[in-house]
Amino acid sequence: TQIMMNVGVPEQAFQQGQIPNNGVGLAREEFIINSHIGIHPLALLEYKTLEKKAAKDKKIAEVIKKIDERSIGYDDKMEFFVDTLARGIAKIAAGFYPNDVIVRMSDFKTNEYANLIGGYLYEPEEHNPMIGWRGASRYYDPKFKPAFGLECIALKKARNEMGLTNIKPMIPFCRTPEEGRKVISVMNEYGLKQGENGLEVYVMCEIPSNVIVADQFSEIFDGFSIGSNDLTQLSLGLDRDSDLVAHIFDERNDAVKRLISQVISTAHQHHPRRKVGICGQAPSDFPEFAEFLVECGIDSISLNPDTVIKTRLKIAETEQRLGR
Amino acid sequence: TQIMMNVGVPEQAFQQGQIPNNGVGLAREEFIINSHIGIHPLALLEYKTLEKKAAKDKKIAEVIKKIDERSIGYDDKMEFFVDTLARGIAKIAAGFYPNDVIVRMSDFKTNEYANLIGGYLYEPEEHNPMIGWRGASRYYDPKFKPAFGLECIALKKARNEMGLTNIKPMIPFCRTPEEGRKVISVMNEYGLKQGENGLEVYVMCEIPSNVIVADQFSEIFDGFSIGSNDLTQLSLGLDRDSDLVAHIFDERNDAVKRLISQVISTAHQHHPRRKVGICGQAPSDFPEFAEFLVECGIDSISLNPDTVIKTRLKIAETEQRLGR
Repeated sequence: TQIMMNVGVPEQAFQQGQIPNNGVGLAREEFIINSHIGIHPLALLEYKTLEKKAAKDKKIAEVIKKIDERSIGYDDKMEFFVDTLARGIAKIAAGFYPNDVIVRMSDFKTNEYANLIGGYLYEPEEHNPMIGWRGASRYYDPKFKPAFGLECIALKKARNEMGLTNIKPMIPFCRTPEEGRKVISVMNEYGLKQGENGLEVYVMCEIPSNVIVADQFSEIFDGFSIGSNDLTQLSLGLDRDSDLVAHIFDERNDAVKRLISQVISTAHQHHPRRKVGICGQAPSDFPEFAEFLVECGIDSISLNPDTVIKTRLKIAETEQRLGR
Repeated sequence: TQIMMNVGVPEQAFQQGQIPNNGVGLAREEFIINSHIGIHPLALLEYKTLEKKAAKDKKIAEVIKKIDERSIGYDDKMEFFVDTLARGIAKIAAGFYPNDVIVRMSDFKTNEYANLIGGYLYEPEEHNPMIGWRGASRYYDPKFKPAFGLECIALKKARNEMGLTNIKPMIPFCRTPEEGRKVISVMNEYGLKQGENGLEVYVMCEIPSNVIVADQFSEIFDGFSIGSNDLTQLSLGLDRDSDLVAHIFDERNDAVKRLISQVISTAHQHHPRRKVGICGQAPSDFPEFAEFLVECGIDSISLNPDTVIKTRLKIAETEQRLGR
């Protein structure tokens, strides 16, 4: 079992890369977008239009002022987004080179996107954002597609210009194989071509459908990464953010464990065999859960950096017991 | 395949009962509570306390005034709830006697409960009510249990005093077998005892876990009724109310069909064999979906009254083709 790490902050990557590891199972774009960019990508894309509207609209004038402050030195505001994101991702990829670094494309929910500068201009109100417009469904939607395009261009830059071909993009919240095909095609349009320059594309396994039709997702994607938090939420129909039902949340629930075991076996039986990792919180929190994953034959476990040593020992014991 | 009906309005039950049918697959409490009661059950339970508070609180005084108007003739406000609900359910059960009438216990979401008179006093705000505090998780929760108790007393009254033993209560949104056991035990406390006087208790199959551990749910409940709308929503992680992703919603999705076929086969293999019906919208909307269900060996299909004749013919054709 490969031991990978969950990495959020690019600035810590060089240090964290020193911990014995087989790469990054989950690098999140959200931290970079929140901290280093802070602006809704569509506001950057439509900067010129907003600038014109600012004369008549105080709120928009405020948005323009904030964008200018943050993107100082960039005439082209799209370039600001692409450069900043590419640099953040490259820092992580360099810190772990030549091991794989799986980068999850943006996975903000609507209410989270709305909190970015200018976000209120582009984000609708949703009654249930957790199961709303997020992940793959945004990427091919004409309303969001250009913003996803910026992410693709940033990843392409980090891979092709900076030479960090250990980066593998991963698509979150992909509900159907059809959505998967649409997203792959949009990535292609923006120059991020599956198979070219060794590019593999992974998919999160966090919706029950990802498991139930894993054979079909295996036709499209090169590998899976289990998001045990969301998978638990949806298998049990449970919003973890609601205090009233949080007591029912448990990744060690039989339903969740059966799904995990099923996706691993389906992906491994596929031709070509597809790898399955996990990047959720569960194996960091519960050693017996890590043990269960090893028994299922999972390919990699991605852990929070502070639990790597402890869990690595536990996993080695389990592997010895199983004679692997 | 038995053909049952979805019935909402008690006043139409005697007429609808004339359509050739094998009973009611889904009678909803929500219509009765909304139209004939209109008041949050906890406001009725705490009427005396609220009455005292009304002197100092205008909003509560308004609640009391509305309760008094609606419950005229009842000193005991709990009795108003129990009588009105029992009468509504009894009308449906009588219209279809002696065929089974499956009554779903209350399935309001938090935002829907909040809209009842006095509801604002008892209902929290949730970010994702669709996957929040609803169904089974309310019934055993000390904050809601007494309200669920009133429903149990009403059903007991309709069954034992009015003699309508064709009523079968059904538990919606039951996330885990443990929740199922807790709810059965609360029903027991309020005198609605599984096995007594022929009482069977059904469970909705609308959360992926209901399918994945259907063997465990079969230990607790006497039968399943598939709610294809919610099952589709959760299998695909999809809020149908969000216009932005509604285009992905389709009960004919492979993931949903595999789950449906799985729960039927698991329930039928259980000892004792458990019945599986469906009460969602899909077989009313799509004849080919009704055909698929018959092929899976489903025990009953519950349809909207206006589609019964058409779909019955389609199902008969399919059964003939399959030689059943």
